[in-house]
Amino acid sequence: MKNILLTIEYDGTDFHGWQRQPGKRTVQGEIEKTLSKLLRQDITITATSRTDSGVHALGQRANVKGNFGIPTERIPLAANNMLAGDVRIKSAEEVELDFHARFDAVGKKYIYLIRNASYDLMQRNFCYHIEKELDFQSMKEAVKYLVGAHDFKSFMAAGGKVPESTVRTIYSANLTVEPINEGRKIIFEVRGNGFLYNMVRIIVGTLVDIGLGKIPSSDMKDIIESCNRSRAGHTAPPQGLYLSEIYFDHVELQRSLRGDE
Amino acid sequence: MKNILLTIEYDGTDFHGWQRQPGKRTVQGEIEKTLSKLLRQDITITATSRTDSGVHALGQRANVKGNFGIPTERIPLAANNMLAGDVRIKSAEEVELDFHARFDAVGKKYIYLIRNASYDLMQRNFCYHIEKELDFQSMKEAVKYLVGAHDFKSFMAAGGKVPESTVRTIYSANLTVEPINEGRKIIFEVRGNGFLYNMVRIIVGTLVDIGLGKIPSSDMKDIIESCNRSRAGHTAPPQGLYLSEIYFDHVELQRSLRGDE
Repeated sequence: MKNILLTIEYDGTDFHGWQRQPGKRTVQGEIEKTLSKLLRQDITITATSRTDSGVHALGQRANVKGNFGIPTERIPLAANNMLAGDVRIKSAEEVELDFHARFDAVGKKYIYLIRNASYDLMQRNFCYHIEKELDFQSMKEAVKYLVGAHDFKSFMAAGGKVPESTVRTIYSANLTVEPINEGRKIIFEVRGNGFLYNMVRIIVGTLVDIGLGKIPSSDMKDIIESCNRSRAGHTAPPQGLYLSEIYFDHVELQRSLRGDE
Repeated sequence: MKNILLTIEYDGTDFHGWQRQPGKRTVQGEIEKTLSKLLRQDITITATSRTDSGVHALGQRANVKGNFGIPTERIPLAANNMLAGDVRIKSAEEVELDFHARFDAVGKKYIYLIRNASYDLMQRNFCYHIEKELDFQSMKEAVKYLVGAHDFKSFMAAGGKVPESTVRTIYSANLTVEPINEGRKIIFEVRGNGFLYNMVRIIVGTLVDIGLGKIPSSDMKDIIESCNRSRAGHTAPPQGLYLSEIYFDHVELQRSLRGDE
């Protein structure tokens, strides 16, 4: 018996999200179908995060248990030859039998891309287009309030499974800017021990509303404390969101946090 | 009677090229279907270039003649509301009745993007991935030989309609490099009075073969003079190619050429 941890990259555009659903093309469904053929048995995989339709992943993780004839290191290439171009297994490694991709995660990193420039059709599935100029400094001010352990109920969408607690710890939250043709790209990077349903997208929507002058940046503190979804901003669209990295131990997480400095 | 010149942008990924084909989703087909509904008559449009499957356009041009009830400036927005997200009419302007988008073009500009870096799944439909390091200086050397009037038969694929003459004039050909994460992007920009079937893709394939050391850069001159397709390199894939601009008069073309300096 082996337990194999996969690192998976996908372009979420043409998927109905991660989770297997009858009659719909999902990332879990495509990978399970492919691995079932490759490994000649019914395969079920367990991912760290269930991403929504249109959301991308650079480093989704999932584990799969079973007795497989094929050497672990051969799985990525063999599976990728059978998978469509919009999903790819980047690596496969053997882990302890009791390892669980969801329960053993201590942190995750998401990236959200905002294109603050004229509309670019080629980028439509990969960022949030904001043509009006955003006040980057105000947005950056507001980001500071996010770090730490807070009740993030104001940033939770209805529709997900309601969790026992809505307290989450944000380890880092950074906003950076890069010049591009006729404008700039604003990149939000956030690491936390977990995220509520649509939390990153509602944070980004709130930051955009701050950047547009609809909400003062100093309100961010009150919005968090209010625990009231209606105080926060809109939900930014899924196509700007990337599940970037998953951390399974604190050493790995600390190393990643230091990389920011 | 009006003659309207459209500027059209599209992501070629999910189209079977420009040209209308029964039972296939093509750019011409989608635009004609949309304009026929909008303008309540059977519409046929004439484009400057018939791009292949997977090739993108930033500034394709096409003209459409008829008696239309809707003001010309309202056509783009109205049509874009009916079109899918991967094709967009950027502008519409009235032109002389005898204007013809193909016969009146005096030049075109193409851009070809090479990603000389590790594979990026999100970019798979928008560039040519070359993971091995390319010798940029050798490629740049070779590009010089392209400019001017030459018989480009060595760079013509079989399969297109064979033209009366295979002589074309290249007005400008430039190769530039931009750093990106863990590598660089190489951008080829070329303007000419016309291009043979697959000419830009075969030129780029030859440049890549030069960059990989398979062909010496000084061979470019001989390859052109040989008028022999088998002397040139491979055909670069369609997804890196963008039809960028069309010029309908020499003033416009000269202005564009000066913009490079």
